[in-house]
Amino acid sequence: MKLAKLALAAGAFALTATAMAQPKPENFVKERKAAFTLLAWYFGPLGAVAKGEKPFNKDDAVRATNFLVPLSKMPWEGFVAGTENVGNTEALPAVWSNTAKFKELAGKLETEMVKLQQTAAAGDAEAFKKQFGAVGGTCKSCHDDFKKK
Amino acid sequence: MKLAKLALAAGAFALTATAMAQPKPENFVKERKAAFTLLAWYFGPLGAVAKGEKPFNKDDAVRATNFLVPLSKMPWEGFVAGTENVGNTEALPAVWSNTAKFKELAGKLETEMVKLQQTAAAGDAEAFKKQFGAVGGTCKSCHDDFKKK
Repeated sequence: MKLAKLALAAGAFALTATAMAQPKPENFVKERKAAFTLLAWYFGPLGAVAKGEKPFNKDDAVRATNFLVPLSKMPWEGFVAGTENVGNTEALPAVWSNTAKFKELAGKLETEMVKLQQTAAAGDAEAFKKQFGAVGGTCKSCHDDFKKK
Repeated sequence: MKLAKLALAAGAFALTATAMAQPKPENFVKERKAAFTLLAWYFGPLGAVAKGEKPFNKDDAVRATNFLVPLSKMPWEGFVAGTENVGNTEALPAVWSNTAKFKELAGKLETEMVKLQQTAAAGDAEAFKKQFGAVGGTCKSCHDDFKKK
């Protein structure tokens, strides 16, 4: 019974698992774009708080940043060699020619996002607004060099 | 200087933030599909471990499940009213007509994923393989009723 259930579950994901063992180039692009979609989804609305258009709400900020911290670690594994000009990628060739800088900025995003999570957890509205700017600036500095306009 | 930086960051995300204040129906669909893409990305490869095709690696299992737990909470906010037949959604109308059942299964996924994370953190290969089946079965039971074939 348990084996049957496992076999069923394994069967349901057999295609995925097989595909993932050697993901196709387009699946790496899909992965990184999905991560950026969710980063924008949870980060974007915090901009209204940072701009003072919406009051700081600790619960909302904690929920969003608890998602944003793991999300900030996800896009980078999608930028493997061989995915430079695949599908609807918005990545510039510089990602693969200036890898050290790209990795540095990726790491900076992860670090700055953890700090944003900390200001949220502390319920510190002013620190949160300021740190939103630091995260947004990190996004922008990477987009400037590594993302198509 | 700090204000200028904040304004820059806020400006970079102004479009996103405005769009997110009242996200368009297609953006809800994009959000939930991105969450499912990443769930499949990190869950799929674990199938090879569950089937015994690949040895259990604690570090890999911990990394994947630390991502999967927050991801398992993300798709559901994308299923708002008015997004039933939007874009390339694979959701069946039952999501909106049998909401209680859908929510129950969504909650079950979150619960089962936390258990998977626990088996990974414990480094318990056999428990992990068994719990992979429980998570996969939960995915399948929801797809059977709520996802287009």
